[in-house]
Amino acid sequence: MEIEILRLGHRLPRDERISTHVALVARAFGANSMAYSGQHDEGLSRSLERLGTSWGGQFKVEYMPKYKSYIKEKKEQGFSIAHLSMYGIPLPEAVPKIKKKQKLLLIVGGEHVPPDVYHLSDFNISVTNQPHSEVAALAITLDRLMDGKELERSFDKRFKGKIRIEPSEKGKEIIEG
Amino acid sequence: MEIEILRLGHRLPRDERISTHVALVARAFGANSMAYSGQHDEGLSRSLERLGTSWGGQFKVEYMPKYKSYIKEKKEQGFSIAHLSMYGIPLPEAVPKIKKKQKLLLIVGGEHVPPDVYHLSDFNISVTNQPHSEVAALAITLDRLMDGKELERSFDKRFKGKIRIEPSEKGKEIIEG
Repeated sequence: MEIEILRLGHRLPRDERISTHVALVARAFGANSMAYSGQHDEGLSRSLERLGTSWGGQFKVEYMPKYKSYIKEKKEQGFSIAHLSMYGIPLPEAVPKIKKKQKLLLIVGGEHVPPDVYHLSDFNISVTNQPHSEVAALAITLDRLMDGKELERSFDKRFKGKIRIEPSEKGKEIIEG
Repeated sequence: MEIEILRLGHRLPRDERISTHVALVARAFGANSMAYSGQHDEGLSRSLERLGTSWGGQFKVEYMPKYKSYIKEKKEQGFSIAHLSMYGIPLPEAVPKIKKKQKLLLIVGGEHVPPDVYHLSDFNISVTNQPHSEVAALAITLDRLMDGKELERSFDKRFKGKIRIEPSEKGKEIIEG
């Protein structure tokens, strides 16, 4: 399954860290790339690029200010569109439906999501019916799509990073080189 | 199972939103309360209090500047201590062990976690071996401890909020009163 992320309405400096966490989770939990709309933020793509050099993988972050035409373009490329929102259908109900898809664009909203996003999406999905965090909603959704396998995943050896962690009961074990 | 959260090293304004997301996830995914060390931030407890009034539950946020004595106190009260860290043992390995516990203090680190936290903890647990987000790590850990039941959870009726969401395929359905 090919999964891409679209983060809506990035604002500087307010969303700097939250959007970075969204991108880091997307990468660590198996998505291929992230696009974002809102304000342009070179630091966001640069920090994910730097992280890839150290930790491996080929995750890319791109600025896509025109989210509506971007979503439509993805639909034409055969992507199903799933929008994470507190107001959608419960994740356990949605998972069997979206798991069948070959290509998925997962939309992660910002503070105010325009109504057209709900209508352009094939699925509006809620992760709990309580307000919490787009970072957590994305992590739980990717976890369900990956059947928890991301917890033991290694990055593709062709694009491996310089650093990896050796699990340890106490303290830190970092392997470089 | 009784779960409490300790968020370490809160810094203002840098961690304002991330710590809020940590608290919101703790609440929505079934923890009882959160304590935090670092800088005092009245806004953090106030915003969770306001949220509880609207959305229900009895989740509390408290400032605990002396994290070390707080952890020791919790140990004396019979809590097991689990610290979420990129460097620990994989979550799937840890879950069967911590699930048996009656009381659990889950520690969520900040930028630089002092070495004593690793040693005071009964379990150092990693959620993937990649850098990502303490918000996601907490969500996935609580999800595993709750067997995914938090996704369909309602808040205790005695402490119910004024607002709830009716799941909807397109758009928003909010029920007040």
